[in-house]
Formats: sequence, structure tokens, C-alpha cells
Amino acid sequence: MAAVVLCGSNRMGRSVVRLSFLSTKGTRRTDSCLSCFSGHQAGAGLYSRVTGVRFASRLAGGRIADAKYRKNALVAAGAAVVAGFMAGFSHFQRAEMATRIVKDEDNDREILEKCKGFMSAPVTDVEVLQQTKGEMSTRMEMLIMETQAAFCRALEEVDGGKFRVDRWERKEGGGGISCVLQDGKVFEKAGVNVSVVYGNLTEEAARQMRSRGKVLKGKDGKLPFRAMGVSSVIHPHNPHIPTVHFNYRYFEIEEADGTKQWWFGGGTDLTPVYIDQDDAVHFHGTLKEACDKHHPQYYPDYKKWCDRYFYIRHRGETRGIGGIFFDDVDGPSQEEAFKFVESCARTVVPCYVPIVRKHLKDSFSSEQKDWQQVRRGRYVEFNLVYDRGVKFGLATPGSRIESILMSLPLTARWEYMHEPPKGSQEAEMLDVLRNPKDWV
Amino acid sequence: MAAVVLCGSNRMGRSVVRLSFLSTKGTRRTDSCLSCFSGHQAGAGLYSRVTGVRFASRLAGGRIADAKYRKNALVAAGAAVVAGFMAGFSHFQRAEMATRIVKDEDNDREILEKCKGFMSAPVTDVEVLQQTKGEMSTRMEMLIMETQAAFCRALEEVDGGKFRVDRWERKEGGGGISCVLQDGKVFEKAGVNVSVVYGNLTEEAARQMRSRGKVLKGKDGKLPFRAMGVSSVIHPHNPHIPTVHFNYRYFEIEEADGTKQWWFGGGTDLTPVYIDQDDAVHFHGTLKEACDKHHPQYYPDYKKWCDRYFYIRHRGETRGIGGIFFDDVDGPSQEEAFKFVESCARTVVPCYVPIVRKHLKDSFSSEQKDWQQVRRGRYVEFNLVYDRGVKFGLATPGSRIESILMSLPLTARWEYMHEPPKGSQEAEMLDVLRNPKDWV
Repeated sequence: MAAVVLCGSNRMGRSVVRLSFLSTKGTRRTDSCLSCFSGHQAGAGLYSRVTGVRFASRLAGGRIADAKYRKNALVAAGAAVVAGFMAGFSHFQRAEMATRIVKDEDNDREILEKCKGFMSAPVTDVEVLQQTKGEMSTRMEMLIMETQAAFCRALEEVDGGKFRVDRWERKEGGGGISCVLQDGKVFEKAGVNVSVVYGNLTEEAARQMRSRGKVLKGKDGKLPFRAMGVSSVIHPHNPHIPTVHFNYRYFEIEEADGTKQWWFGGGTDLTPVYIDQDDAVHFHGTLKEACDKHHPQYYPDYKKWCDRYFYIRHRGETRGIGGIFFDDVDGPSQEEAFKFVESCARTVVPCYVPIVRKHLKDSFSSEQKDWQQVRRGRYVEFNLVYDRGVKFGLATPGSRIESILMSLPLTARWEYMHEPPKGSQEAEMLDVLRNPKDWV
Repeated sequence: MAAVVLCGSNRMGRSVVRLSFLSTKGTRRTDSCLSCFSGHQAGAGLYSRVTGVRFASRLAGGRIADAKYRKNALVAAGAAVVAGFMAGFSHFQRAEMATRIVKDEDNDREILEKCKGFMSAPVTDVEVLQQTKGEMSTRMEMLIMETQAAFCRALEEVDGGKFRVDRWERKEGGGGISCVLQDGKVFEKAGVNVSVVYGNLTEEAARQMRSRGKVLKGKDGKLPFRAMGVSSVIHPHNPHIPTVHFNYRYFEIEEADGTKQWWFGGGTDLTPVYIDQDDAVHFHGTLKEACDKHHPQYYPDYKKWCDRYFYIRHRGETRGIGGIFFDDVDGPSQEEAFKFVESCARTVVPCYVPIVRKHLKDSFSSEQKDWQQVRRGRYVEFNLVYDRGVKFGLATPGSRIESILMSLPLTARWEYMHEPPKGSQEAEMLDVLRNPKDWV
């Protein structure tokens, strides 16, 4: 925090350096987490007020403003501040404080360095993240921003196109960053969203947020909450490249008696149009490896949960070949839960990108494209009829609909009484969806 | 009933004529009402057991078996029966009975004649319909069958294609007839469904069926019910031809204390892709005319109800330009309510078909087709997220999903952050959807 000690007072009661503000150019849009949170549309500054970091805004027309960082100015200012601040203390005090400040400086720089790689400035001011870097909500916000950036960069490299980056602010508190690549060379529609929102939940909404439907008692029926997550759905053009979805999230809710409830949720799952045994084994194997580092029961349990959750009941089919899905993870400790979620989030790129690359040049017929479109229709059915996050988002006034429904494919198809011929590749796929398999 | 008095005993305790049974050829499918009822898939006989009427089955491959009627044999058998049956009565008794029987014969013939024009045999045996011809459920079943046939024939004439006719039986009681024309010359997907179902409802399901959410008390939580309706959604290829939807339905529910609740529901609404003032005026004007014959308040009230019902809350848009919508109509008398519904049902063809014909040869660009696809996406959103009938159907085990989801278009599109340019025809359409207008 050393770098921000000079004048004024920030929200945490510490003195802060106020660096110059730059005005931003370009249209800014709004966004929210695909599957969990609601956001009110509003123009949001693209600058961290303290760090003065200027982030790229990739606009609708495809124009890309390069990210520019004002780090050097910031660090210099910080050093001068530390020197002035320390006059008037005893040698012992000075030595101790100097150590702490140097350590703080290192940590602050680390956060700042990480922010440079993000698709946009984090939702929370960098200053606040620096001040609260030990808190779980900060660590999770850094993780979801990192995950968004890592996945977007990997997809950009494959596609050759660039993600459009939209920011939004939620009137009631918080905001998000939405990255969308539509009609790319490889991807028909790719969306990667981050959101960090807070405010008050009704007891009903809080119940909906927890899959076990635990009743949480609020003061006058209201529960202060903080929620954040990264969420993504990628729909490629080529029917031999599967659709992928992932979502990693963290919630904190305060009950009337001051009890703080927190939990993690998440998962990564694959929706192929045609079954490829090797892809399925690679995908599940990579997830299993990430899970096994934390508990041998995680993969088998969360694999089953995934098959159960992504089930289109009225069709008697799963949405895809699954992966892992979990919710309400509040143990064994907060630290261990976070480490597990971190492992999962860092597995997204190695799970999916090799599969995309493998099928990049696969040829396909118009019949295969049609089958993809029929499967996309099923995807829409799941998302609109069953997905808890979508239902919660659509029912929440002020939600940012474009982000919630970004998970829907660009195109879909509903054929009356569609049933693939016996023995066809399409029938083989359907069989797997009707009878989920163990892949690893 | 004269025609069915000879030997054996039917369900109503009367003697019945048993005519020969013919086996049917061709695949038979199953179906249910688009928006209200659930049906279990089962092969259903295409013959009326008593009348021996053989109905056309238009199969998937487009093969059409002509309808053949065995009416003459039936009528001859009936006349012989009457003569034998009347021996042994006094002159007075004989004269009175003869009059009644001749009248019955006329009525039976009338039902039989009407059945000839249907797309398939009614769900209920013709024999039973003849025996119960005065009952509201029979009159309504005849009306929905007539409506289905009239609309299908009118669309076939415009398109040049033929509807595929699928029958289904519902394990728990009743069944339906589904008529679908997919990928025709004019229509991308046209579905016209009839269903007649009965059984027991849970109190929760009964509550969902009534829009006013009236709590109905069942015996051990179960309520015997009978429900029937005709329902249709037509999606044309040409973006200048609007989508139309209608649904007319009748419910009877028996409460624990024996009270019989009955009500009608229904409506017809238009979903254009581009606004055409004349079409809107014609459509609403035709509906208003039908309503005004029954009560001057019906059109204004049900027009408003339609705008409210077909509202995509999360988009802040109506689905289309509305029409009429009503539910829970249980007055002023059952007779008058039926007559009103009858007028509405008979207005479907004159409401829509002239609009289709008017735009048959309108040219359109790929951008206009895209806009249609985006609007189709909104149609899907409404149907999957809000439509009470779809929600009820999807949540009911054993529902015939293909019929419930037949309302979905063949193709749809979701573009991220789609917003038509100001002043464009697309923006004009959107403005109407955001601010419903009074057309007549």
C-alpha cells in the first residue's frame, strides 16, 4: 500500500495518492456474469483511479486501442511518499515499518503487474484490491480476471480475431467485464464474462443462489451479499469442434445474526456435436488430474453432479458429455476450497484449446452442420428452461440481459420429430447423451 | 343415436352397433396441444370403431392415403335397427320415439359429416361424440377439430404442400392430433395441434392452469379434469409474412366437494418481422369484429391482456403486435362463452390468410432475413421462458415434447448486443414492440 500513501483518505481509512485522471475514448458497454449475476447497464470508467492504468477497449467495430500503463509514474510517486511518511519515527519503528512497506510495495506491484495482463481493469479499484489483497474476495477477483484473460488470449490466438471488451456497472453495486468474439474464423460466438457484484439479496433470491436451497435468515428479509465469477460459452463454426462452457464463482452472504456464509461453485463441461473418444478422454482426464490434486473423491462426485445438472429433462438427454460441476463448496477450509477452484480455473485452456486445434481443419457436410444446429437448439432449451443462473438473471430486475443470454449460440434449429437414423454418427452421439459414460 | 342401437353395450349403457374393423397402414405418430396439455406417445388407431370411418394419414415421407368413408353402410344398418327396435310399443310411444330417433339420426349424421372434413378422426370415438353431442366437451371437441381442418386446408392451398398428420394417445387418458408442414414453399414451419386429455391433476398443476391462480381443492390433492384445445404457430420463410399463433381451449375440473369448475381460454396474435400498418389494422379489425358480436368490452380488454401476456419481460418488448388473449372465461353463461370462443376460432383463417397472400411475392434481402432470425430468437425466448402452456407441458411427466416445442421456429439467431440503426425499418418494428399501439 506504500505507493498510495500521500493525501486524501480512501475507503479503508488510509491516506491515498491521487494520481491524474485521464478521460477515455470510445464507446463503453455493460456486462454481467453469464450465469449468475445481474448488472445494470451503465458507462464505466476504464481507468483505475489510483494506478492510472489505461486499459484496452475493443470496440464493436473491431477497433483496438492498445493498453497503456502508467506504472512508472506510479512507482516513482510511491517511493517519494514512503520517504516522507517515515520521518519522525524511532529507528526500531522505522526499520519495522520499512520492511512492511517494502513488502507491501512488492505485493502492490504484483497485483499491478497482474492487472496489466487483464482484458480490462478489474471491477474493483486496483487500489482497493491492493489494500485487501489477503481477503478471499480479492484473491478470487484476481483469479477470475486472470482466467478471463488467459482464455481470451488463447482463443484469439486460435481464431485470429479479437475479443470486443465491454464493461458495465451495476447500479446496486459492482459491475463486470464482458468479452465477446462473434463470427470469427473459428468461433461463431465466444463469450467470456467476469462479474463482481454486491448489495442486498431477498431471502428468496438467496435461496435460489444456493443449490442445496439452504434457508438464510436476513434482517428484514434482506441479506448483504458479495458475488463474483468468471463464466464462458464458446460455440465454434465447425461441427467437429465442441462447444465448451465453464463458470467459477464465489459468494459471501451475511445473515441477520452476523454469520458470514461463503461458498464456491463452478465447473467445466463439453458439448460435442459428434463424439470423439480421444477428445472426451483428454477433456475428462485433464479435469480429473486437476481435481485429484485436492481430493480423490472430487472428480467422481463432481462428474456425476455435472451429468445430473446439465440434464435436459424433457428430452431425456444431457446437454453434452459433461465434465465437472459443483456448488456450495465451503470446505475443508476456505484456503483449500480456493486452491481447488484455482486449479480448475487454470485447467480451462489445457482442457479445451488442444481439442479446438485438433479439429481446426476437419471438413464437414451440410447435414453435419444441420445436426450441429439441432444440438444448438437443445443447448438453448437447457439454458432457457433449466439453467439456474440464467433463470436467476432473467428474473432479477436490472440484469444485463445481453450478458446472461450471450451463452446462446448465434444460430440454432428446431426440426419437428428429428431422430437420426440408426447406426449413424448422430445416433451414436445421442446414445451417449442418453446414457452418460465414464470417460476416465 | 339410432344408428348405434343393435347389439352390445357402449360406455353410456346403450346398445351399440359394432361394425367391422379395418386395420390401418402407415406409421402413426403422437402429439399433444402446443401450449396446454401433455400426452404420452403411443400408436393410436385411425378408425372410429363404430362408424368405421377411415381417415387420411399423411405420413412423414409425404405419402397421402385418401380418406374413405363407410357412411352408407352405417346409415343402412341404422335404419334396419330402428325398425326392429320399435316393435312392441304403443302407437303413441312409437310415434314419439320415431320422431326422436329420426332427429337423433339427423344429428348423428351431422357429426359424421363434419368428421369427414377433419384432418383425422377426432380424439374421442365418434360414437361417444354422437351420444354426448349436447355436452360442452363434445361441442368444443368438434369446434377444435373443425378449426384445425379449416386452417390446415387454407394453409395447404397457399403453400402447395401437405400437412403431415400424427396422432397420439396419452397413457393417462385422451390424446391428440398434430399437423405439421415443415420446409414448405411458403412456410418454414407450420403446426396445428388438437388435444383432448383427461385424468387427475395435482393441485399445483391445477393452479398453474388457471391464470388467476385460483386454489382448487382436490380429494387427497387430486382433481379430475378434462381439457381440450386447438393450438397453432405458423412461421413463414419470407420475413414480410408475419408469424401467427392461436390457441382456443376448454377446461373442466372437479373439486373434492363435487363442484365442477369450467372455463375457456384462448387468443390469436400476430408477430410480424416488419411492421405493415394495413396488416395490423386488418388483423386487429377482424378480431374486433368477432369480439364485438358478443360484448363491446371483449376486444379492448382482451387486446390489452394479449399485450400483457406476450411480453418478454427481460427484453422490455412484446413478442409481436398482439391480437386478443383471454383466460378463465366462465360467463356470462357457458353457452355464451362457447359462442364467443366459436366466433374467435372461426376468425383465424380470415385474420391471417389474406396477409400471407398479400406478401407471397415480396422480395427480401439477407439483412432482412437476419432480422427475422433475430426476432425468431426472441420468439424462442418468450416460449421457453414465459409461456405458461410450455412451462406446464415441459414440467409434466409423459408430455409429448415434440408437440409442445413445435411452436419453436425451424431456425433462430442470437446476436450479441443487436440494436437496429436509428430510423431503420427494424428500429420502427422494435419501437412498436416496446410501445404497443392501438390499431383499431
